[in-house]
Amino acid sequence: MTSTIHLTTYLPEEFSPIRWTNNQLKLLDQRILPLDITWLTYSSAETVAQAITDMVVRGAPAIGITAAYGVVLSAIEHNRSILDGDYSAVMKDINILAQSRPTAINLFWALEQMEQVLKTSESADTIERLIQAAIEIHQQDIQFCHQIGDHGAGLLSPNSTVYTHCNAGALATGGHGTALGVIRTAFKKDKIKQVFAGETRPWLQGARLTSWELTQAGIPATLVTEGAAGHTMKSNPVDWVIVGADRISADGSAANKIGTYNLAVLAKFHGCKVMVAAPSSTFDMTIDSGLDIPIEQRPFTEVTQYKDHQIAPTDVIASNPSFDVTPPELIDAIVTEKGVILSPTKEKLLAHFQ
Amino acid sequence: MTSTIHLTTYLPEEFSPIRWTNNQLKLLDQRILPLDITWLTYSSAETVAQAITDMVVRGAPAIGITAAYGVVLSAIEHNRSILDGDYSAVMKDINILAQSRPTAINLFWALEQMEQVLKTSESADTIERLIQAAIEIHQQDIQFCHQIGDHGAGLLSPNSTVYTHCNAGALATGGHGTALGVIRTAFKKDKIKQVFAGETRPWLQGARLTSWELTQAGIPATLVTEGAAGHTMKSNPVDWVIVGADRISADGSAANKIGTYNLAVLAKFHGCKVMVAAPSSTFDMTIDSGLDIPIEQRPFTEVTQYKDHQIAPTDVIASNPSFDVTPPELIDAIVTEKGVILSPTKEKLLAHFQ
Repeated sequence: MTSTIHLTTYLPEEFSPIRWTNNQLKLLDQRILPLDITWLTYSSAETVAQAITDMVVRGAPAIGITAAYGVVLSAIEHNRSILDGDYSAVMKDINILAQSRPTAINLFWALEQMEQVLKTSESADTIERLIQAAIEIHQQDIQFCHQIGDHGAGLLSPNSTVYTHCNAGALATGGHGTALGVIRTAFKKDKIKQVFAGETRPWLQGARLTSWELTQAGIPATLVTEGAAGHTMKSNPVDWVIVGADRISADGSAANKIGTYNLAVLAKFHGCKVMVAAPSSTFDMTIDSGLDIPIEQRPFTEVTQYKDHQIAPTDVIASNPSFDVTPPELIDAIVTEKGVILSPTKEKLLAHFQ
Repeated sequence: MTSTIHLTTYLPEEFSPIRWTNNQLKLLDQRILPLDITWLTYSSAETVAQAITDMVVRGAPAIGITAAYGVVLSAIEHNRSILDGDYSAVMKDINILAQSRPTAINLFWALEQMEQVLKTSESADTIERLIQAAIEIHQQDIQFCHQIGDHGAGLLSPNSTVYTHCNAGALATGGHGTALGVIRTAFKKDKIKQVFAGETRPWLQGARLTSWELTQAGIPATLVTEGAAGHTMKSNPVDWVIVGADRISADGSAANKIGTYNLAVLAKFHGCKVMVAAPSSTFDMTIDSGLDIPIEQRPFTEVTQYKDHQIAPTDVIASNPSFDVTPPELIDAIVTEKGVILSPTKEKLLAHFQ
């Protein structure tokens, strides 16, 4: 069911951590990257939901794409009911998928797209149409990442030093990446001098995924701990902090990986600019304020243990919020596939999506 | 040579990670705490210097005390030369000890004290006087920590929530601690509601040492990653960030564990106050500006590996500064054994030590 290949494997720019083949979903197991490259195969919505919860796949756009394929798997499993016009089993699986993680809105957006297709298909062609819809969500995400890359790179001056956090790369999306999409595109345009990548405790996506993507793309990258962020900004002129987002509320607040808000405050203090790169599926215009974005608290053992090592004493309590919210006054630009929103406000967001 | 006992061992408040018995130095191996309690035995200055470099012992005051005992070991080893009035071998060892780590000034301060004793003793009583001097440095540090605790606790209101970083506890000093000394004393005076402890990558002293000390003292503590600092301050009213220091320059800039500067900037942004707790041996009045404090860069594999695990790809470069410098405008109070310096300036520091 799984195969392991080793680190020398080339990671192409469009590298997608999600593959749909022979009516099965394959996910690159991101928990063990970069040392092991293992693809896990899924054939039910329930196991796909668990894979999202367990962070086999992570990154807001990638979670949305994965959930869309999860709906396809459900429809294949419940093909007979669908032919009878009974969609209840698939709707139940959509609900299970929706409960896999709470913060990234792309998940709910993708499930809504799929539910719409489900409800508007003739029962005979439902599965075919769901497959097409999921593939379209996937392909469109890659295309959007390239458009985000172009718009974001347009904001950078030549010879820029940038700082990114967590992984908003090819591995977090359909391919190319959002924040790393901007960096990849800007690098091709000779605008990137140096990238600092925060290691991103506790899951270390910066160390494991971002530094891997950057190194393979030949982009000069230096890994730093979160604690070194202020010292780095003081010692080096960082032009832009560039991050992804898991949900952006109507006021322009951006929920993203825990530690993003620190960087935004530090950037303000040091005169660096902050760019949030995300496709329009990341926006939740039903939430007025960033304060109302639900923040996932993950098990605290993710902080007190590292793999099989107990780090802290077993009786120590830890707090493990997976995201934080950066308010719009700390964001210089939100970049979507449609273009750039400078100094975001609710009015600008509404105008952007009209 | 070593013994291992397990986690149930009670850690008394005055717990010193340094013991002098039978003309040998024993150091608690802080690299493997809290899961293994192992004392390593040293009988030469050279191995003591290596133990400091390798972080068997860490924490500015503890490094100073350890180096003082290291000079004693050198004098014992070179007893015959000393009796002949030849101190050159001991002076060579003092130089080796001085090169063990660059940032903590307490190391150089303690070595100067010991050199002074060496040079002013009659050769017949040199070793006895050096032993007495090292023990006095050790005992005085514990006493100073209690005085720092009293002065610092005096600044706290009842029911305070505080945030600390790295380990400035009993394990970093002769006993009781500097920043944790303030927290221990304030807790006894019913002033502490909650302590947040930053895990402190890459060595995780917060997770391994501080959370251990706090839990054993019965002080309510929550461990957080560095990335969660801003989110924590936004979600909880943190009254004081309380940290130790490795060197304080004449302008009141404080070098401390990497990540301290982040916390000071975040504290400013959130209206929390910042307290630096350190004995007077931490001050370096020969350095005018914090910009001139030497910052140790440690091997980057400390970031890219965790124990036997490779975290990041082997071809990834990391930056691993061990300290950062917080400027005086971000510090509300420096607390020493002599009292409190509010909003530090060079003039106030000079007056404090007159």
